[in-house]
Amino acid sequence: MLNDADVVFICTPINYVIPSAKALIPHLKQDAILTDVASVKGEIVTAIAPLWPNFVGGHPMAGTAEQGLDAAFNAPDLFVNAPYVLTPIETTSQTAITTLQNLIEILKSRYYSCSPEVHDQSVAWISHLPVYVSASLISACMTEENPEILQMAQSLASSGFRDTSRVGAGNPELGLMMAQYNKEALRRSLYAYRQELDQVIEQIEGNDWAAIANLLKFTQSQCPAFIKTES
Amino acid sequence: MLNDADVVFICTPINYVIPSAKALIPHLKQDAILTDVASVKGEIVTAIAPLWPNFVGGHPMAGTAEQGLDAAFNAPDLFVNAPYVLTPIETTSQTAITTLQNLIEILKSRYYSCSPEVHDQSVAWISHLPVYVSASLISACMTEENPEILQMAQSLASSGFRDTSRVGAGNPELGLMMAQYNKEALRRSLYAYRQELDQVIEQIEGNDWAAIANLLKFTQSQCPAFIKTES
Repeated sequence: MLNDADVVFICTPINYVIPSAKALIPHLKQDAILTDVASVKGEIVTAIAPLWPNFVGGHPMAGTAEQGLDAAFNAPDLFVNAPYVLTPIETTSQTAITTLQNLIEILKSRYYSCSPEVHDQSVAWISHLPVYVSASLISACMTEENPEILQMAQSLASSGFRDTSRVGAGNPELGLMMAQYNKEALRRSLYAYRQELDQVIEQIEGNDWAAIANLLKFTQSQCPAFIKTES
Repeated sequence: MLNDADVVFICTPINYVIPSAKALIPHLKQDAILTDVASVKGEIVTAIAPLWPNFVGGHPMAGTAEQGLDAAFNAPDLFVNAPYVLTPIETTSQTAITTLQNLIEILKSRYYSCSPEVHDQSVAWISHLPVYVSASLISACMTEENPEILQMAQSLASSGFRDTSRVGAGNPELGLMMAQYNKEALRRSLYAYRQELDQVIEQIEGNDWAAIANLLKFTQSQCPAFIKTES
């Protein structure tokens, strides 16, 4: 029964987290801990925290391209080594945080804690921006009007294209909600990205090969900082 | 001895193909077939074809992130199922084309034939554009001035970011030469890409969620056309 539960995880799509919390809260026992797993935190924490001090925003960054219960059953190690972020705020109960930390330790996930705002801007950079960078790559290729070139491009595309386009061809509902619920942080990332892209175009047009060489050496050198595990 | 060779492959970096061909041609026997493996074909074919009718531009799209002879020895099936493009022109000898086709069959590669121009625009879309799309993603993230956000982004980056950023963190010399030797086709692709990106930004800013949903459904539906094999 819900009113016996010590910890309740809301695992709905982003847009149902707040309504689900509001529907659940009246049925929770007084010291129940409530958390969610949505990939955007600001709006959710702002809405639910005032209603339930034992609410802690959470974001386990585990998952596969698959959906549904079968996907979960087929991936018993899903959470091992995956980042698991909690986003407590000043009013969040310390007991709730500690209990969830203990559960995260049992899952063998990597625990992180930050404000909802830091979380949202961070995932905008490394998760939401890549979706739109990657989707734009596919849609740009599809603007090719010469059918022979388009067909040849599709024939020749291999691992490089597959990897760069993968997240842009993922779950459309999830991609849409990333933009809807993390709009400001994503917008900021998209603007920074466009500025980098404009600079690349300007440098290529201007034959500024030294600048292009420096860019590619820089990106090669920076990439390892983003890749912590093989998971 | 070079003057005994029936088929000579020039496998230098792009910028040494033309000088190598010029240096080799005086030493080839009269019916020797000359080919190269560079990832850009227009300039190379234009320069070498008038000097040697048995020259056929070639582009085997096989390779790993590794370099050097060890990498080749460790990958005996490197060419199996990989695309291998020949880019003959009107003056190219049919015998030369047929001989290379036979060799490509022995390698078990997938054979394609097109003009140097169709090749160059095709690889601009699926190979050279992704390098700069991906490099710009890394450099955009590195513009983040809040060290807590940057560190959290680097901690949370996982397979999605890793895949989208991979080719932008590859061999800088190769990335540079793609831009130098395929500048016009790459520029055309970059412009189309920027237009798609601008549209995405405009739609997100304008809360045009129907358009964003359509984009992501479209890119999801189009992606399989680009992915022919698991290689």
